[in-house]
Amino acid sequence: MTETLTPPSTSLAVGDDVADLLFRAARTTSLFTDEPVTDEQLDAAWNLAKFGPTAMNTLPLRVLVVRTPEARERLATHMADGNKDRVRNAPVSLVLAADPAFHEHMDHLFPAIPGIKDQLAPATETREAMARKSALIQAGYLIVGLRAAGLAAGPMDGMDFEGTDAEFFGENGWKSLLVVNVGHAEGEGSPYPRAPRLTFDQVAEVL
Amino acid sequence: MTETLTPPSTSLAVGDDVADLLFRAARTTSLFTDEPVTDEQLDAAWNLAKFGPTAMNTLPLRVLVVRTPEARERLATHMADGNKDRVRNAPVSLVLAADPAFHEHMDHLFPAIPGIKDQLAPATETREAMARKSALIQAGYLIVGLRAAGLAAGPMDGMDFEGTDAEFFGENGWKSLLVVNVGHAEGEGSPYPRAPRLTFDQVAEVL
Repeated sequence: MTETLTPPSTSLAVGDDVADLLFRAARTTSLFTDEPVTDEQLDAAWNLAKFGPTAMNTLPLRVLVVRTPEARERLATHMADGNKDRVRNAPVSLVLAADPAFHEHMDHLFPAIPGIKDQLAPATETREAMARKSALIQAGYLIVGLRAAGLAAGPMDGMDFEGTDAEFFGENGWKSLLVVNVGHAEGEGSPYPRAPRLTFDQVAEVL
Repeated sequence: MTETLTPPSTSLAVGDDVADLLFRAARTTSLFTDEPVTDEQLDAAWNLAKFGPTAMNTLPLRVLVVRTPEARERLATHMADGNKDRVRNAPVSLVLAADPAFHEHMDHLFPAIPGIKDQLAPATETREAMARKSALIQAGYLIVGLRAAGLAAGPMDGMDFEGTDAEFFGENGWKSLLVVNVGHAEGEGSPYPRAPRLTFDQVAEVL
């Protein structure tokens, strides 16, 4: 709990403990304990996030789970200088990516339009734009889902995306979007005080 | 509860009621009751979502709250045919948008780099790409936040984005990303059965 926390709200359908765990007390984590992250925990997080809505139920988010020292060293090479050690020191790093070939699953995922898979097949650029858009929204769901699974998440955007894609995604064609370090937070999980936020009045207009 | 729900997990840090409310039983809602959505409820949802991490704490998501019949008719004009009545029939519609001028707040939001506002000012294209990326991740946070505030959310991507921007954002320069109808669900909130999802094995690779 820090002084920047929002006061308890009477307008929530979840308890203050849940609001704190998922949002108000959760930090972008860069300090992790040695406690490992299990496959079951990642699966549990996905089994929440997968239900979040995507355009035409495309579900284009893909996840490269980077566990071994060799793999994390390969990933660190493509991170911005300030993020290399964050990858090396996290129990697990996830490369979140968009899959432009999401249409391969569409006859199963969106039966409302029979043959949608074949209709989308020639539209390469459209598919990549669709994949990037919904996958980013899914990244939001997954970060909350990881926290709901009892894990701390440290998303990072400072990286060489093209280099990462060439390193890991030459065959499957995934497009990297961000890296999320995952583990259990040491203390507050961050050496920095929480940065300010904008109020609803500052971001909203009403008609 | 439907047969497609994930079985209760022992790996969650939240109760099954919360997991159902935020993810497993939540649907893309198009059927709403007449119960209004209060300003306090929208504020409560934002006061959760605002804490979600964004690149350099840019917080570029903006929200146009469409309440009046006149405003919703203006918005309906720019929606795909199948989405026009969804806007007309929802208690409130939110146009989620990215603000390329997010840098105006950066000296306050990211004090770690003094003068970051002025550094970003000339980089128009970079700012718009940054804004779109983090705002989409924030859209994921906000959809979960709306549910945590006891509201049902119906996000929609089928719309004329350029027309919407010209209609509403000619002065502030916001870029529309999607529309989210908000209210209280009538029944399950959707006339359709829940569509399938992909398992973690289907979306993940492990190194």
